[in-house]
Amino acid sequence: MQEKKLWGGRFSESTDAFVEEFTESISFDKELALYDIKGSIAHAKMLGKQGIIPQEDTEKIIKGLQEIEQEIKENKFIWKKEFEDVHMNIEKALTDKIGEAGGKLHTGRSRNDQVITAFRLYLKENTQDIINLLEDLQRKLLEKAKEYIDVVMPAYTHLQRAQPIRAAHYFLAYLEMFQRDKERFIDNLKRIDMLPLGSGAVAGVDFPIDREYVAKELGFSQIMRNSIDATSSRDFALEFLSNCAICMANMSRFSEDMIIYSSSEFSFVELPDKLTTGSSIMPQKKNPDVLELIRGKSGRVYGNLVSLLTVVKGLPLAYNRDLQEDKEPVFDSVKTIKGSIVGITKIVEGAKLNKEKTQLAAGGFALATDLANYLAEKGVPFRQAHHIVGSIVGYLVTQGRELESITWES
Amino acid sequence: MQEKKLWGGRFSESTDAFVEEFTESISFDKELALYDIKGSIAHAKMLGKQGIIPQEDTEKIIKGLQEIEQEIKENKFIWKKEFEDVHMNIEKALTDKIGEAGGKLHTGRSRNDQVITAFRLYLKENTQDIINLLEDLQRKLLEKAKEYIDVVMPAYTHLQRAQPIRAAHYFLAYLEMFQRDKERFIDNLKRIDMLPLGSGAVAGVDFPIDREYVAKELGFSQIMRNSIDATSSRDFALEFLSNCAICMANMSRFSEDMIIYSSSEFSFVELPDKLTTGSSIMPQKKNPDVLELIRGKSGRVYGNLVSLLTVVKGLPLAYNRDLQEDKEPVFDSVKTIKGSIVGITKIVEGAKLNKEKTQLAAGGFALATDLANYLAEKGVPFRQAHHIVGSIVGYLVTQGRELESITWES
Amino acid sequence: MQEKKLWGGRFSESTDAFVEEFTESISFDKELALYDIKGSIAHAKMLGKQGIIPQEDTEKIIKGLQEIEQEIKENKFIWKKEFEDVHMNIEKALTDKIGEAGGKLHTGRSRNDQVITAFRLYLKENTQDIINLLEDLQRKLLEKAKEYIDVVMPAYTHLQRAQPIRAAHYFLAYLEMFQRDKERFIDNLKRIDMLPLGSGAVAGVDFPIDREYVAKELGFSQIMRNSIDATSSRDFALEFLSNCAICMANMSRFSEDMIIYSSSEFSFVELPDKLTTGSSIMPQKKNPDVLELIRGKSGRVYGNLVSLLTVVKGLPLAYNRDLQEDKEPVFDSVKTIKGSIVGITKIVEGAKLNKEKTQLAAGGFALATDLANYLAEKGVPFRQAHHIVGSIVGYLVTQGRELESITWES
Amino acid sequence: MQEKKLWGGRFSESTDAFVEEFTESISFDKELALYDIKGSIAHAKMLGKQGIIPQEDTEKIIKGLQEIEQEIKENKFIWKKEFEDVHMNIEKALTDKIGEAGGKLHTGRSRNDQVITAFRLYLKENTQDIINLLEDLQRKLLEKAKEYIDVVMPAYTHLQRAQPIRAAHYFLAYLEMFQRDKERFIDNLKRIDMLPLGSGAVAGVDFPIDREYVAKELGFSQIMRNSIDATSSRDFALEFLSNCAICMANMSRFSEDMIIYSSSEFSFVELPDKLTTGSSIMPQKKNPDVLELIRGKSGRVYGNLVSLLTVVKGLPLAYNRDLQEDKEPVFDSVKTIKGSIVGITKIVEGAKLNKEKTQLAAGGFALATDLANYLAEKGVPFRQAHHIVGSIVGYLVTQGRELESITWES
Repeated sequence: MQEKKLWGGRFSESTDAFVEEFTESISFDKELALYDIKGSIAHAKMLGKQGIIPQEDTEKIIKGLQEIEQEIKENKFIWKKEFEDVHMNIEKALTDKIGEAGGKLHTGRSRNDQVITAFRLYLKENTQDIINLLEDLQRKLLEKAKEYIDVVMPAYTHLQRAQPIRAAHYFLAYLEMFQRDKERFIDNLKRIDMLPLGSGAVAGVDFPIDREYVAKELGFSQIMRNSIDATSSRDFALEFLSNCAICMANMSRFSEDMIIYSSSEFSFVELPDKLTTGSSIMPQKKNPDVLELIRGKSGRVYGNLVSLLTVVKGLPLAYNRDLQEDKEPVFDSVKTIKGSIVGITKIVEGAKLNKEKTQLAAGGFALATDLANYLAEKGVPFRQAHHIVGSIVGYLVTQGRELESITWES
Repeated sequence: MQEKKLWGGRFSESTDAFVEEFTESISFDKELALYDIKGSIAHAKMLGKQGIIPQEDTEKIIKGLQEIEQEIKENKFIWKKEFEDVHMNIEKALTDKIGEAGGKLHTGRSRNDQVITAFRLYLKENTQDIINLLEDLQRKLLEKAKEYIDVVMPAYTHLQRAQPIRAAHYFLAYLEMFQRDKERFIDNLKRIDMLPLGSGAVAGVDFPIDREYVAKELGFSQIMRNSIDATSSRDFALEFLSNCAICMANMSRFSEDMIIYSSSEFSFVELPDKLTTGSSIMPQKKNPDVLELIRGKSGRVYGNLVSLLTVVKGLPLAYNRDLQEDKEPVFDSVKTIKGSIVGITKIVEGAKLNKEKTQLAAGGFALATDLANYLAEKGVPFRQAHHIVGSIVGYLVTQGRELESITWES
Repeated sequence: MQEKKLWGGRFSESTDAFVEEFTESISFDKELALYDIKGSIAHAKMLGKQGIIPQEDTEKIIKGLQEIEQEIKENKFIWKKEFEDVHMNIEKALTDKIGEAGGKLHTGRSRNDQVITAFRLYLKENTQDIINLLEDLQRKLLEKAKEYIDVVMPAYTHLQRAQPIRAAHYFLAYLEMFQRDKERFIDNLKRIDMLPLGSGAVAGVDFPIDREYVAKELGFSQIMRNSIDATSSRDFALEFLSNCAICMANMSRFSEDMIIYSSSEFSFVELPDKLTTGSSIMPQKKNPDVLELIRGKSGRVYGNLVSLLTVVKGLPLAYNRDLQEDKEPVFDSVKTIKGSIVGITKIVEGAKLNKEKTQLAAGGFALATDLANYLAEKGVPFRQAHHIVGSIVGYLVTQGRELESITWES
Repeated sequence: MQEKKLWGGRFSESTDAFVEEFTESISFDKELALYDIKGSIAHAKMLGKQGIIPQEDTEKIIKGLQEIEQEIKENKFIWKKEFEDVHMNIEKALTDKIGEAGGKLHTGRSRNDQVITAFRLYLKENTQDIINLLEDLQRKLLEKAKEYIDVVMPAYTHLQRAQPIRAAHYFLAYLEMFQRDKERFIDNLKRIDMLPLGSGAVAGVDFPIDREYVAKELGFSQIMRNSIDATSSRDFALEFLSNCAICMANMSRFSEDMIIYSSSEFSFVELPDKLTTGSSIMPQKKNPDVLELIRGKSGRVYGNLVSLLTVVKGLPLAYNRDLQEDKEPVFDSVKTIKGSIVGITKIVEGAKLNKEKTQLAAGGFALATDLANYLAEKGVPFRQAHHIVGSIVGYLVTQGRELESITWES
């Protein structure tokens, strides 16, 4: 008979040491500790209010959990792998602290609905943080656009100079992209902000629980209706990962632009020393490492999305242990996207445009479209105007001349 | 001098045959033909209204385009790879038909904003279709839930029988999942439903165009503000692909359930003959191929999402030819998800539950939780009640007995 | 009773039209037609040789198949969706042509081992093609390296000029990368080149077949030992897709380099007109579309790899219809990688380096490492030497001076 | 002037605290510590042997590094984020310990070639470990096949009973799959086992180094020829990740089989208590968590592959900081695949087949193919025989009868 495990009643052999190591999640899910305690306090209050457990047990539980919370915050709490996960660790500590009453906390809930409640609390808070960080970034882009409203630079297509634009126009393109990224996270919140607690392991709970009360305590604006769905769906997390991936893609594009613009050959942008790093061997180097890492970290977040998509593919209902693999991709993506947005924000703030360089590059053949349009306005069908100007450009290139050098004579 | 290409003015060598083959998109983007014509008609009307081209040219253009539309619908239009893409094919046909006026259609626009306009029209319509199909599916799930409201079956966790539930409870879990899938597509629509036309190649258009008018003609509810963003962003398509991937994941889970439930060993579900296929070698087989293909096709849609995420990773602004790779993943996902939803809907409609089998499986140890809850209600701390029942189960298993066989004596 | 289907014996309803459409594979697997015929001829010969079917039936079958082969090559063969796939289409045509003997061809085999045999024949041939194309590309890189052996250019790290190198050094880096790509395909061949035929649907065949004979006829160098494995494993195709993805990654890097090097700002590389395309609106543009598409098409191949990885994830043994989804990702990757290698080869052949530009860029601070090394050779610890040179560079930058301008005085 | 950074000479502002945090790699790359020291000792020996640094400095360096190695092994070494990565941490500690001689260790190398040398040493060792673990697993599969050679079970296709097989046949299918997995890792080793050291930052080293000597010291069997390639290619790691992904796919299939086979409905397999876990709410549950986690962890490894593929997509030559993102996916995959192989091995060892159940399931309609084959041997064309048997099965199903119940009369 297993004595250590909280679920050991049915088992005749103790768990293999390898299994303990392989299945543990405490090494990463302690990230959820404070959300788990928050959820447990709300649950205990409800159990007491409904008379499912004695009110004095509720009080003991809350006091015990608050002490544990304090220990965690002060980094004094000892996490043990033999108790598998953050939830079992906390419950064990609670029982050690307050005795039999601790064992009653788990009445009317299962780890399946408990875990997902903590996870949703965590993700709700972090999604809001990301929304706020994106707003900061947009503000900085707007300031930059104002600062450089009169600087002219070439717009590129195919990395070839296309047409002259204001630098403000360039920065505002990203402001628009991050606006949609932000809106996606806001839409996502609707599907994160739902209470699963009360679903039990899969089939609901047969105690007279009050889910409305718990939802209100925890600040959830909706209650999940179906217990099978509530315990086994992870689409809200997939949506979050996908939103992160799309936002990282946008940041990878900005990074690429800045890396190219700060090459010696372009020299459009000067990055502040404090946001670049040096080389261990080449003393002259000033490398845009932060931007390179953000560009590279898009891979990490794409990978996290693929991970969780793979986990849920073909998974039968309802909860399966595979779903334990939902947390690390989300935690890692939260950390990565927050760092990346802060990084981009600092770059936007600190980057200086070299007006002489951008202005120079915006002249020359980049004006060819204007010439074609001029002809079109004079009545030449556009396709023909385009052809005429193309021929002129081709001729000038063979002569090593720029478009401005053209005269009525030649 | 290249004569064939509409953009050939600047070039001194003709395009390599390989390049023509490698860069063409007509083999797949003709899917956009009718949307392109719709966009061009709106554009031509606007050009006429604003006096940018003579009103009579507008009329010729519209008439020409309508004839081409008819030819396409009747499958009489000949697509040519040498004209690269759907847009150039149509413009060439138009000029052949109406002469010089055809060349004026491209005034005040570029292929960059033209293509993305047609693409957004296409995706708006198809997203709406998908929303409707999901609603149909939900309706069928609801009917099935009603039909089987009194059938008991086991809920599974870890593919082990967990607790008895009503079959309706099972079907409604998927109804909830598809509800969120549907909501995601609805949210997505907000970001699809934006007019990019008027952005030119990248830097906007210097003719006195009227974008509000074009938006209204085409039924777009918003206008994209930034021309760089409008021509080079594909996040709306990434969001669409991600929504498809999540929805396919949900459908792959339902497929997995049904495949397992229709195995001989489970025998919970009988699929109608017309939705299954046979074996070329084993005469007794009745295979759930439709479900297997839906489960498998989740891979296809996941892959499409990864494709486009990869394309935009690290791509400098603004339009780059890489973005031509946005279409096939979207077209293929549209086709796949529509077919899959229809397939699942037909399965939901046609599947018959074998009540005797499900009821039998829902008895036995699946009732153990109820016993533990009973003890907990009688005042035994839940953890202890769980342990007691676990020991009983362990004992019965060694005796080859079921839970119902227990008496006060033994 | 279904009459049309070759496996219809057991079924009482005819297949739903949707199911026919949704499950068909003839729209893409006809790519395997000639390989299927090759496999069937070898099988028929063996059946005759072993006396499993009369020798005269073997002869009829071979003659019939050869006629069908001719029709397919001449594009006269009519593929029908109602016969599901390439194999059933061919068998039906054969039976129509030669009568009852046609029905005997399927003795001692199943579609499960038949399909995978054709697929392996296809992939073996195409992998060899890719190996040959990579060798061509390497040859061109070597020629280019010889041509530009005396041209100096900067090596970049972090897209910052690092140190001067010979252009040959640059081209040979890619020669090495493609060497490993090639070796991976060669290793892959060992695991493609195995005969699955003789495995039946899953459990082998109980006729006295001669697999050694069939292997020899088809040119396979090994026989798959386990029939379950032979019919349900797709790791050889996953390995192929992964090799394609890695090779596409390498090509995407070369494309990126060339795109950057052919920007106006770098102007290191001039691409031949015939390998670039123009703009519909900007007459001066000369866009590196082929390179952009290759860079973009890396996404397509990455996606194909993810597709098939997803398909096989969690798939129970043995054959499941999900595996029908193995073909399109492979066919598409074969086409894409072949086109991309040809494209890169043409670019390598046609690209011209602008020596003046590369030489100029290779001077200046790119020489700082040499100065630090010089100090180190004179006995200054390298870290200190690095620090000294770094300070000099920092000072010169504030003075707007280059490294060459330094003298003993200042 | 930055004093703390080893590369700080050129910089006028100190690094932003955020940048330090965002760009550090010490939190994960300390995994490479012992490999880095191994590489440094070989490098120092070579520098001394070649007279590039004084022999007595070599001796000091080796002694210092050995002390540091000891401190790391005893967990006494303090890693500091302000020194960025494992290499800088060790070099700083060395200089603190032995003074000026420590600064000479970096002569003739760069972090770019130093890091990748340690990484290749790490991966070579771990790939060999994986190969050994796969061999263990194969051995256990063989034992199991022997143990159950006379047990009959159904082979499944489409999760429908197909034909009776020996259980040994089933286990040997996986033995074959893992054989190819193993061979892929062995092939991979050829491309891992190459010395990059001596490549400098990108352009090689201008000291008279002896790379053959270093390769021999470190046990590398080849030397990388091109310094640009050596410092910036990661295809060997992509190949490794892909091999891991394919192997995880195979293990996810085995896990799926075992999970299904140990459901109550199948009851083919009994897993040992010590390899399963319980439920916090359902006392009767015995969950195959290890198998579920392995199935789920396929997602993690797929994601790691996608991460690194994304990182290298479109990355210009040569080293870019994005490449720092190569390590975590590899470290995580190494840990995951090792754990998963051990887990599968333990399951294979511990799983008990329930012969009665498997035998029973292998009867009935699973014999239909044999009947069709019998008719074919008697001269009925196979397609017709198939049809006849299919009709019999259809008839029996409507009568609720099994195939064995058939007689000459009815």
